Amino acid sequence: MSVAPILVVGSVALDSVRTPFGEAVEALGGSASYFSLSASHFAPVRLVAVVGEDFPFESRALLESRGVDLSGLETAKGRTFRWRGEYSAELGHAHTLETQLNVFSVFHPRIEAQHRRTPFVFLANIDPDLQLEVLRQIDRPTLSLSDTMNYWIARKPDRVLEVLREVDVALLNEEEARALAGETQLVRAANRLLDQGARAVIIKKGEHGALFQSRDERFITPAYPVQGLTDPTGAGDSFAGGFIGWLARCGNRDGNALRQALACGATMASIAIEDFSPRRLAEALPDDIRGRLQTLHGMMHFELTDPFPPAASPRQAGPA
Amino acid sequence: MSVAPILVVGSVALDSVRTPFGEAVEALGGSASYFSLSASHFAPVRLVAVVGEDFPFESRALLESRGVDLSGLETAKGRTFRWRGEYSAELGHAHTLETQLNVFSVFHPRIEAQHRRTPFVFLANIDPDLQLEVLRQIDRPTLSLSDTMNYWIARKPDRVLEVLREVDVALLNEEEARALAGETQLVRAANRLLDQGARAVIIKKGEHGALFQSRDERFITPAYPVQGLTDPTGAGDSFAGGFIGWLARCGNRDGNALRQALACGATMASIAIEDFSPRRLAEALPDDIRGRLQTLHGMMHFELTDPFPPAASPRQAGPA
Repeated sequence: MSVAPILVVGSVALDSVRTPFGEAVEALGGSASYFSLSASHFAPVRLVAVVGEDFPFESRALLESRGVDLSGLETAKGRTFRWRGEYSAELGHAHTLETQLNVFSVFHPRIEAQHRRTPFVFLANIDPDLQLEVLRQIDRPTLSLSDTMNYWIARKPDRVLEVLREVDVALLNEEEARALAGETQLVRAANRLLDQGARAVIIKKGEHGALFQSRDERFITPAYPVQGLTDPTGAGDSFAGGFIGWLARCGNRDGNALRQALACGATMASIAIEDFSPRRLAEALPDDIRGRLQTLHGMMHFELTDPFPPAASPRQAGPA
Repeated sequence: MSVAPILVVGSVALDSVRTPFGEAVEALGGSASYFSLSASHFAPVRLVAVVGEDFPFESRALLESRGVDLSGLETAKGRTFRWRGEYSAELGHAHTLETQLNVFSVFHPRIEAQHRRTPFVFLANIDPDLQLEVLRQIDRPTLSLSDTMNYWIARKPDRVLEVLREVDVALLNEEEARALAGETQLVRAANRLLDQGARAVIIKKGEHGALFQSRDERFITPAYPVQGLTDPTGAGDSFAGGFIGWLARCGNRDGNALRQALACGATMASIAIEDFSPRRLAEALPDDIRGRLQTLHGMMHFELTDPFPPAASPRQAGPA
């Protein structure tokens, strides 16, 4: 079996994160790092990003240990993108303490010839103008997935929508979906995004799992019930890695494949958040991934019985 | 097929509700009304509650039209319990404008001899002391389910926990579960409630569906994707009616039955909230219920494929 490769364009950063459960200082971070380590369990990954001359050898080695193709990882003059943040007890939202864009501030992704025909593409959360630059450089992939954030929705809503119309699936969290669609109820928000031209959307809902909606399909995955949530950073990118990773690996995108892809997304997100930085993602074993996937499947699976079989009178339980 | 009956003890009220989609004035309301009309689609229901002399004939007729046994509905001297509330655009929480307990203020449920051995029992949201009074009057049922609200959790947490330890399944919404357990993450909150002596809990999460957790089982249902949400009043009681209704109807309580029961709960809740008062619940046809149940099942169902079958090297997608 030859598994189709995945191209990811996003950020590689050094994160300093504090949560109620501890802290990490200048550890590997960034959307492309989380995504790559997650997806690498399912398919070969090609990473396009930029780092500074100070990017640690160990972080590069960690990505390479999972077979991530770093030929598209540019090293620019200057320092690597740094982010410093903390989470409160609720662990819902990061509070950003400091962002140093450094080499990332002038980043324009350049897709090398050997990467332009990659069948699966993830446009991680970067400026939507850069996401569009990437789409202009590549051949139409089998499946493309985009991410974004409230920052871009507030500043460049039209460009975010332009990306959303170009890709096969747009990934948003609850808040982003509500903000972009202008609807508070999520079912309405998802429908509105389809009206605005999206082919399909995935709405990530944290501990409530995720919702997939296209014109023809609507389905959900629960979140994997993590006992030891440590650091939620990178959950969304790890989710994206599991989702597109499974589609690349299984080689089709019918309803069944998409459902399992959603569960693979939830699985990889749950692994990522059990430790700081993408450490656990790099260490995860096939048995761990398989076991969580079975747990998620078991949380949803049942054999449906017709509650009102034709033999019985439909109002049998009603008036005599 | 003879379906086991269900006993419900709760409130029957006249509700005046305003939402962004309209209003209802002095319409049938109360936990026992919603529950009964919901559960009546699956099993015979025996209602124990109190109304005043002013309780409208039409409301009584509506309950009877669904075969609800009203022999336990006491008519006391005075006026029926009235509630007046409104929902904002978010439709998440009711804002209570007025509560007139009236005859409900001195209500002590009395379970008549012919109802004491009912195999399925729902203790709707009333004072936990009254819930315990009911439990002392009845033979141990096959399955008992309790509901509560933040009002009682704040005032009588020990009594709420006492009920929770007595029943087979305790139903709470997200906020109530967090408040009673003292945990913000729902998985931890559910575990904590089990530690506190609950056999099983269902946490209702509104548009995010519901979570069932016991020592052995954990599973979820999504919410049915309602397009025309009109009035969320009674969603929880309608959920309870579908849940226990299915268990009574199908005659067992294995994991598969409990999963479908959860989906039946979500189905009936979705029907209830499409109109004011329990009107839609009374009118719902078997095809409507069956169709929604199939939709919910379809939102979750997939055939799980082993992502790392033994034939392939488990790290095939990793380093060469």
